[in-house]
Amino acid sequence: MFLMRIGAFGAEKPAVRVDDTHYVDVSDVVTDFGEAFFAAGGAATLAGPVAERIAAGDVHEFGDRRIGAPIARPHQILCIGLNFSDHAAETGQAVPAEPILFTKSPNTLVGPNDDVRIPRGSTKTDWEVELGIVIGRRTSYLGSPADAAGAIAGYVLVNDVSERSFQMERGGQWSKGKSAETFNPAGPWLATPDEIPDVGDLDMWLDVNGVRRQTGNTRTMVFDPYVIVHHLSQFLVLEPGDLINTGTPPGVGMGQDPPVWLRPGDVIDLGIDRLGRARQHVVPPR
Amino acid sequence: MFLMRIGAFGAEKPAVRVDDTHYVDVSDVVTDFGEAFFAAGGAATLAGPVAERIAAGDVHEFGDRRIGAPIARPHQILCIGLNFSDHAAETGQAVPAEPILFTKSPNTLVGPNDDVRIPRGSTKTDWEVELGIVIGRRTSYLGSPADAAGAIAGYVLVNDVSERSFQMERGGQWSKGKSAETFNPAGPWLATPDEIPDVGDLDMWLDVNGVRRQTGNTRTMVFDPYVIVHHLSQFLVLEPGDLINTGTPPGVGMGQDPPVWLRPGDVIDLGIDRLGRARQHVVPPR
Repeated sequence: MFLMRIGAFGAEKPAVRVDDTHYVDVSDVVTDFGEAFFAAGGAATLAGPVAERIAAGDVHEFGDRRIGAPIARPHQILCIGLNFSDHAAETGQAVPAEPILFTKSPNTLVGPNDDVRIPRGSTKTDWEVELGIVIGRRTSYLGSPADAAGAIAGYVLVNDVSERSFQMERGGQWSKGKSAETFNPAGPWLATPDEIPDVGDLDMWLDVNGVRRQTGNTRTMVFDPYVIVHHLSQFLVLEPGDLINTGTPPGVGMGQDPPVWLRPGDVIDLGIDRLGRARQHVVPPR
Repeated sequence: MFLMRIGAFGAEKPAVRVDDTHYVDVSDVVTDFGEAFFAAGGAATLAGPVAERIAAGDVHEFGDRRIGAPIARPHQILCIGLNFSDHAAETGQAVPAEPILFTKSPNTLVGPNDDVRIPRGSTKTDWEVELGIVIGRRTSYLGSPADAAGAIAGYVLVNDVSERSFQMERGGQWSKGKSAETFNPAGPWLATPDEIPDVGDLDMWLDVNGVRRQTGNTRTMVFDPYVIVHHLSQFLVLEPGDLINTGTPPGVGMGQDPPVWLRPGDVIDLGIDRLGRARQHVVPPR
């Protein structure tokens, strides 16, 4: 199943994707795709109503409706750093011995095609196509990576937008360069795990102004999604609906020679197999 | 005004402290002391109902009721590192040139007298008495530190519990050592700014098993609360009800010679002028 949220920012309605042009409105079945929804069983609880509505032709056209992030603002957005060996190399850093954890402010979450805003004072705003994991149940102290499968509600395409000078040159901890407004476009949809034949073999790509910048595949991840969820569960409690950005393949702006930074007017296109594609326009500071 | 939340974990009711033994129940006036409450005006909206109830004698005794954290689970918990010059010295690190930002998972928030649980695999669980700032309105790009006063809903006593091996030896970013379950006791109350004569002159202390370990005063902060809120607002958007832990004075376990770490059975007592006192029992891993 492919979960989506359709409508104006802050007023999105939960929906299920039928095909490229149609969706089923489930806003009378569930309030939102947030913590309570995932804790109560998530997508599985929608199977009956959605099948009935498709059979009855009770579907809607996307038309020009805005697509929101496919999940409500989560309890936390966790991020894994340097999780592709070739990306670690381009930043001049060693492949980590275990997942590096940092965070983004949850209110950075926006829709897949919303604007990305350059922060005031920014000189080094950068892109990062990433596979996002959405957590399906309260999760702590998993016994093994294999146990993580049951804790994952689905996967989502994200752009882990980053300001490298804020990240690297303003105190040593990374969150300051990860948390500006609009810095976490996500979507267009959340794909439940049954829609992904092999999460370890998904092509990923990102273009800026039509120039291919990132090309990767989840098979070159240092730590796969199950290892990540198992590992994090040893240090903190994951809540239903939490988002984990699992790291970016090579080709970020910081890794170009010379480096390339986002500027107002730029257009970012990105995609991951089975998770759709997104387009963000870069706009100037407020 | 002193805001409190009374009742079982997850079912706390909002209340206003009258004196050491009495409170006014305001759970019929507001749902909770969360984002919506602070966005709608916060404590000021309670002045009328509280005055009427006190005049009418409509007050309750604390008795043995549990005291919760004085705010609902926030959108984010932000923390400032090494913000007391003498604490930076004891950890062997330089006084930072600007506030160092790291984060804790919001679900670490517990009541002031709840148990602190040692995480599995921990060898270096440590204490940190801190002044917590609670944000009162959506805040971005403040023009000056002086503007921060209008963005602060109040102050709260917190223990920024930390696992030093997870913080320092597991990837370089600190969040992994700050986010274990029960790692953010807060309360007993949120004091609105009018209840604090001078936030720059508050004594702080923490005892472990009756031995005084931390003694400090907010006057030795490197960055005061207004500077911190102004600074953070340049990098991210603060939401109403967000909690900012502003750093700890000297005397953490890591700073003892030899270091002292928390163990099951230990009792932590801590307090800050005008913000009350708290007691946490340390319990073994789950």
